[in-house]
Amino acid sequence: MKIKNLLLVAIFSLLFISPSFAAESTVNAETQFVFNTLLFLICGFLVMFMAPGFAMLECGLVTSKSVSSIAAKNIGLYSIAGIMFWLCGYNLAYGISEGGFIGNFSAWSDGTDFKKDSYAAGSDWWFQMVFAATTASIVSGTLAERIKIWPFFLFVAILTGVLYPIEMGWQWGGGWLAAKGFSDFAGSTLVHAAGGAAALAGAIILGPRVGRFTSGKNLLPFAASSIPLATLGTFVLWFGWFGFNGGSQLALGTFADASAISTIFINTNLAAAAGVMVNALITRFVGGKTDVIMMLNGALGGLVAITAEPLAPSPIAAICIGGIGAAVVVVGTSLLDKLKIDDVVGAIPVHLFAGIWGTLAVPITNKDTSFATQFLGTFSVVVFMFIASIIVWSILKATTGIRISDEAQKKGTDVSEIGVRAYAIKD
Amino acid sequence: MKIKNLLLVAIFSLLFISPSFAAESTVNAETQFVFNTLLFLICGFLVMFMAPGFAMLECGLVTSKSVSSIAAKNIGLYSIAGIMFWLCGYNLAYGISEGGFIGNFSAWSDGTDFKKDSYAAGSDWWFQMVFAATTASIVSGTLAERIKIWPFFLFVAILTGVLYPIEMGWQWGGGWLAAKGFSDFAGSTLVHAAGGAAALAGAIILGPRVGRFTSGKNLLPFAASSIPLATLGTFVLWFGWFGFNGGSQLALGTFADASAISTIFINTNLAAAAGVMVNALITRFVGGKTDVIMMLNGALGGLVAITAEPLAPSPIAAICIGGIGAAVVVVGTSLLDKLKIDDVVGAIPVHLFAGIWGTLAVPITNKDTSFATQFLGTFSVVVFMFIASIIVWSILKATTGIRISDEAQKKGTDVSEIGVRAYAIKD
Amino acid sequence: MKIKNLLLVAIFSLLFISPSFAAESTVNAETQFVFNTLLFLICGFLVMFMAPGFAMLECGLVTSKSVSSIAAKNIGLYSIAGIMFWLCGYNLAYGISEGGFIGNFSAWSDGTDFKKDSYAAGSDWWFQMVFAATTASIVSGTLAERIKIWPFFLFVAILTGVLYPIEMGWQWGGGWLAAKGFSDFAGSTLVHAAGGAAALAGAIILGPRVGRFTSGKNLLPFAASSIPLATLGTFVLWFGWFGFNGGSQLALGTFADASAISTIFINTNLAAAAGVMVNALITRFVGGKTDVIMMLNGALGGLVAITAEPLAPSPIAAICIGGIGAAVVVVGTSLLDKLKIDDVVGAIPVHLFAGIWGTLAVPITNKDTSFATQFLGTFSVVVFMFIASIIVWSILKATTGIRISDEAQKKGTDVSEIGVRAYAIKD
Repeated sequence: MKIKNLLLVAIFSLLFISPSFAAESTVNAETQFVFNTLLFLICGFLVMFMAPGFAMLECGLVTSKSVSSIAAKNIGLYSIAGIMFWLCGYNLAYGISEGGFIGNFSAWSDGTDFKKDSYAAGSDWWFQMVFAATTASIVSGTLAERIKIWPFFLFVAILTGVLYPIEMGWQWGGGWLAAKGFSDFAGSTLVHAAGGAAALAGAIILGPRVGRFTSGKNLLPFAASSIPLATLGTFVLWFGWFGFNGGSQLALGTFADASAISTIFINTNLAAAAGVMVNALITRFVGGKTDVIMMLNGALGGLVAITAEPLAPSPIAAICIGGIGAAVVVVGTSLLDKLKIDDVVGAIPVHLFAGIWGTLAVPITNKDTSFATQFLGTFSVVVFMFIASIIVWSILKATTGIRISDEAQKKGTDVSEIGVRAYAIKD
Repeated sequence: MKIKNLLLVAIFSLLFISPSFAAESTVNAETQFVFNTLLFLICGFLVMFMAPGFAMLECGLVTSKSVSSIAAKNIGLYSIAGIMFWLCGYNLAYGISEGGFIGNFSAWSDGTDFKKDSYAAGSDWWFQMVFAATTASIVSGTLAERIKIWPFFLFVAILTGVLYPIEMGWQWGGGWLAAKGFSDFAGSTLVHAAGGAAALAGAIILGPRVGRFTSGKNLLPFAASSIPLATLGTFVLWFGWFGFNGGSQLALGTFADASAISTIFINTNLAAAAGVMVNALITRFVGGKTDVIMMLNGALGGLVAITAEPLAPSPIAAICIGGIGAAVVVVGTSLLDKLKIDDVVGAIPVHLFAGIWGTLAVPITNKDTSFATQFLGTFSVVVFMFIASIIVWSILKATTGIRISDEAQKKGTDVSEIGVRAYAIKD
Repeated sequence: MKIKNLLLVAIFSLLFISPSFAAESTVNAETQFVFNTLLFLICGFLVMFMAPGFAMLECGLVTSKSVSSIAAKNIGLYSIAGIMFWLCGYNLAYGISEGGFIGNFSAWSDGTDFKKDSYAAGSDWWFQMVFAATTASIVSGTLAERIKIWPFFLFVAILTGVLYPIEMGWQWGGGWLAAKGFSDFAGSTLVHAAGGAAALAGAIILGPRVGRFTSGKNLLPFAASSIPLATLGTFVLWFGWFGFNGGSQLALGTFADASAISTIFINTNLAAAAGVMVNALITRFVGGKTDVIMMLNGALGGLVAITAEPLAPSPIAAICIGGIGAAVVVVGTSLLDKLKIDDVVGAIPVHLFAGIWGTLAVPITNKDTSFATQFLGTFSVVVFMFIASIIVWSILKATTGIRISDEAQKKGTDVSEIGVRAYAIKD
């Protein structure tokens, strides 16, 4: 069955060899094919591992009455993303006509057919799927502790099957944004700001947790349940981000590609490192204590910011981009508090605000881009995702309902929705 | 192909170079050697990481009085597996004569000698060793909270040094099951059902925890200690499974192999995803709550089920195989409860029952196999492992004893056997 | 070989192509370049993942009043290491003249320039940076619960930017120790004993926790907060160690290199496995209980010991080296207790004592080395690092102060320094 196809492709590969690697490289074409596929497989499993990273970060930052729920939501959303991206997302994103706005299913692919020249089609499907899942992971933390689980799952299905693939296809599928010259290397806007915009829409429609903004109340009832798990989650995300940014080079099998990925690793790491220390310094000098939660979110803010362009910056530029990304998170967190928007884990400042910063900052180091185009791309994606999400959340609110009762909130979503307490620890 | 007779490849390596890479591929032979070795190294470290996956899953699902014990058992069993598989297991499995029943040590190898043609012998030893450790990991969770640690370690030594290598050699060592045409790509039966059968034998000989099946008793005393750790463990296992199934392609360095591994990643992921959502739906509709523990075990049931054949199915077939695997876990859990067999973490439904399902389902998508042969292979391995384990457990019971006293159980195994409490958390 | 003078290779790359891959291998040079770069990238992310491994190990072993602090210290030190190693460390280590004592910045590199012949310069920078971070990780656990966070960060900046690069350059930068014929494959001494010596100096200058050595006191107030997190951390370190030792082969793209890395994986794994079981047996026979914490530290002691020479030993030799390394940890822990040196997580026995053992044991299996030279190298590095650290710690003590007040210790560093409690778990 597939063996015949493979032979055909092997034969054709001798005739049509992609000039992007054949003209410049001395590496055998099939060897490059294996290298490029291996890159997608390795970077894909690193990004897949961001799913437990988000899960642990969120398990650590919610209160102990909603930990089982957020665990269920995280493993559920990763599962739904895989199924929906296979069912329609991949084909919406990559079935787009050149310069177009939305894909079609004329060349429906399940990811296992063999039609790419320089890598296995399935490895690309795999790598793109885990990006869709990441977009959904961003939403779950913001809405924790008061959203109903099944309407949340419905939103995730629409997000990963329809909304994300549409806007992602504008750029990575070769749609209108790509035609305009927009640049977003690994998705500061296409993944992170998009997910953050969906989370913001959800937070507005859903409203804050009971008692969260009641004046004069002590915030202790909303204390993070486990700092070590939140720290583990952040480190795991950092680890996974090497796949996220490194794999977005899309090829490994030449001098140039292997060197580029090395530079991407360095810049990604330095941006995150700068984010951690900037927020350590800010919280130390502003509040007197070195706030570990802000250090964690500083790492993530730095990572999100460098994601739009991890290759062009020098290391010192990467440090500045990441450090500013972290400061944006601090400011953004205060802003949301003033606006009484309840974002349980700080996903909106991290992914939306730092994502916008990172995308707008691309022209500073990448001279092939312009601020106008970067603004256009960021604006278009964020506005599209925000409005589309507002509509979907509103429909869900009007039909299934999205908010659990105040009484159920007091019991905690673990008891009311999952039926399993998160912790049963007796000293 | 997993069915490939590794021994024959070794013996005839100077005469026959496998046509799967030499005749069809343009990749230099030494380059392929490096790729194939790299595949074993990478997939091996992914499977090695399943050891902490099992450890966290089991730490999370046992009560808080037995967490230090299960941690000690998990790091101990992984260690014993490495030593025993080196000491005799590898040579029992691969020293088998063609079509034979048990290996010999005539060509004893410590894994570091250099005699394979298409990959480093040591990388294969490494990859096979972590499979042996996985088989042992399956057993520890079932028997938690009432088994003595050192008799457990003795069982693990026999399991990983003798029992697993014997039945694994029947197929992957080129023994009688391979000669019959049995197919088990990455070990739904050879690893998972085998480990599950050993666990079932142990659970029967050992008996349930004190109070576990006392009628009318509230099960709260047996509440899982930490859902976030159980979730982390499941995600880590899922992550490691890409190595488990992907590495079982046994080669990377050609168009065909790289493409096959990509398909395996997709199918493995979709089967697990389907398992999560099937069990979310089942528990929501049957019990009213979306049970996160069943979602976790659903992921594992889906993964075990697809392991026998992750390459041939289409994505939709993978979804069905995984989803049914998860449903098998739900039914199997109820069945064990009715039979008053105490399986603390649900390893028997996940690994034995879903493993049998996955192996029997192979002919649905792989036309080179037959239901009769699949049944023969599954039956033979499960019965062999169950009876051999019953004998070993019975001998241990009669000599060292395997069960801690009722009083020690009430204190918890952490206090009685390890002397270290798992948690000392003061708010 | 690790001793290879990387700088010379860079300078003379157009004249001499290393015979280890060019003369003996049929693999295309650019293909080897990609393989070698890929090895550094993969092994680098594995070693990067040791940062959360240390973090979880230390979060688990400290008391619950200092968990947020140790989390902040771990993510902070990893960040500082990245920035400082870029700012000066890499150039101090590799800017050394042949046979020299300290590097200069005459050929300053930010890791992204492209000047190496057989791998991307950036990938080497990345791999070396995570080693610097590991050295710093060793220090944090020993000094937990009573050190001020910002003076600790200052020490880390000096350690990773200056002290570690100086002594590491003696060997891996082609300095005077390399010229003498010292051998330390992946850093039993250069990383682990060096980090352990810095920790010992800190523990002496800082003094023990309040109440730690008060006679007759129950030690329960210092109970480890979470054994499952400590277990997770140990497993993660074990996982990362395959990158640590495997990547130190420095090349992948030939028959010989791929085979060597396979052997390194086997020996690394067996040494750790032996360490676990030796300490399980020791604690069982000496104290009556199978102490899980000693099993964890046994794994680490075995890993540290094999790191100086993971390639030359046979498997049985690796088992002996690792097993003795673990026993050294048990003896060393008692010794520190008698000396009233407070090492919260046992990092000094694990990294300093087992590191010395491993480095001195190299000539047993590697006939190209001598005990005299191994002793010279170990002694020089340990004494240099210990004295330099004593000086730095003393200056910090005299200026910023390094010890929090007794009252703050009673509240816990989480409250006094971080302002975030680690756990808020309500059943």
